Amino acid sequence: MTHVFDEAITVEKLDAEHGYAVRATTHPAYNNMVGPFGGITAATVVAAIGDHPDVLGEPLALTINYVAPIAEGQWDLTLTAVRTNRTNQHWTFTIDQNEQTVATGTSVFGVRRDTWADTEARVPEAPAPVDVPAVDFPDFIAWAANYEKRFVAGGLEDGASDDSTSTLWLRDLPERDLDYPALTSMTDAFFPRAFLRQGTYLPAGTISLTTYFHATSEELAAQGSSPVLATARGARFGNGHFDQYGQIWGDGDVLLATTHQLVYFKDLKA
Amino acid sequence: MTHVFDEAITVEKLDAEHGYAVRATTHPAYNNMVGPFGGITAATVVAAIGDHPDVLGEPLALTINYVAPIAEGQWDLTLTAVRTNRTNQHWTFTIDQNEQTVATGTSVFGVRRDTWADTEARVPEAPAPVDVPAVDFPDFIAWAANYEKRFVAGGLEDGASDDSTSTLWLRDLPERDLDYPALTSMTDAFFPRAFLRQGTYLPAGTISLTTYFHATSEELAAQGSSPVLATARGARFGNGHFDQYGQIWGDGDVLLATTHQLVYFKDLKA
Repeated sequence: MTHVFDEAITVEKLDAEHGYAVRATTHPAYNNMVGPFGGITAATVVAAIGDHPDVLGEPLALTINYVAPIAEGQWDLTLTAVRTNRTNQHWTFTIDQNEQTVATGTSVFGVRRDTWADTEARVPEAPAPVDVPAVDFPDFIAWAANYEKRFVAGGLEDGASDDSTSTLWLRDLPERDLDYPALTSMTDAFFPRAFLRQGTYLPAGTISLTTYFHATSEELAAQGSSPVLATARGARFGNGHFDQYGQIWGDGDVLLATTHQLVYFKDLKA
Repeated sequence: MTHVFDEAITVEKLDAEHGYAVRATTHPAYNNMVGPFGGITAATVVAAIGDHPDVLGEPLALTINYVAPIAEGQWDLTLTAVRTNRTNQHWTFTIDQNEQTVATGTSVFGVRRDTWADTEARVPEAPAPVDVPAVDFPDFIAWAANYEKRFVAGGLEDGASDDSTSTLWLRDLPERDLDYPALTSMTDAFFPRAFLRQGTYLPAGTISLTTYFHATSEELAAQGSSPVLATARGARFGNGHFDQYGQIWGDGDVLLATTHQLVYFKDLKA
């Protein structure tokens, strides 16, 4: 049986006259309040580049800009390998729907070489997943039902806080072995930090998401379907926008990914 | 007299058959070890979008991917306004030189609206700029001579450290009032974090840089030519790459920008 995540990121190759394009279809299981969950869109891009016949290596970086809402239905992803260097490969991409561009972005794939290594960041303190209750999000955040979420700090219904940090144990439901597309999606799985600061839902959405992939494929394989520890915080809120910086940690304090996003929001003043 | 920074980011409009393109020329004052300083390239893009006749608002986000080395001489920047929404505008861009693409990227500009606001990040502790000596970088890092650099922590010649944090007072030399292009450049003005960890120079270069602009134009005007406090740190090093997360702070603890970059490096093992 195909996992719902794999259903959602499935694409079919298009016979493009110029370039390389694939067609995706939004999956109702990954709907967000308006349009699809941004993480599943980003994951679809990373999976499609990974499946490109000329791909070099593994994902290193992804930036995706959510230009306009994506409607339910089909959307087309055009991928361009701008340049292949000895150890890395630069991609640009465009997502179109109904003859409008709804997302743009860039990605870097590359070969990982043996070098000096150290993880300088420190994993947040957290009780074991079994000691933290799993919580549900409201039904109108459909995509969240595909994740097991055990909040160590900053849950969705904790009320207004002066600290926008959320730290949670996170894994796919049903359980699924971690890979680069799933990790991509997880880096967008934090609800908007403004909800936590204001203690309420607000109109909000990601404008631009950047994720750096630190995990090797061996580290992802070793993680299997164990929960990752995900943490994110905003630095500055105001003028209709805020940023969010986050980290995704695997077993053995392996830093799998770092991520930075810019989010718009509205409140009663705006 | 034109400031050297403004000389370096000057472009001329090209008569493009399709789209909108400008021509820039590398400036020897902003050379790096190989090719131009990435910050000046990024600044040129932000300035050129800001000067586009159809621009909406101010810079919110920039991602630039350094695809191949830029040689000394002219390079062409093609700008595309992918979509203009009510309050923001999405751009893509390509930099070509000698019929090769040497950089790609995306940018978001937009209108700042009055909303709830708070800065949650905390400014690093630092003595006043006058109490911190200004240091020079070696001549082969030419661009650095255009910045006054007063390191509070993590200077270039501090020797190997187990903490990759650099915090410094930074301003243009000669003094120049801060604007979005200058702020853009400053977000790339941290030398590679691996130098600090290893206590030595290594082959290293930025692959992808993302900067979020939190400053309003009023805040930039209020900053004038006073030094900003810039801080950056890597989270994970290894497999030929590392990340860097940074913040640029203005007077009165105003968080002007946050930034995240992915850097490649080589060492004797690679």
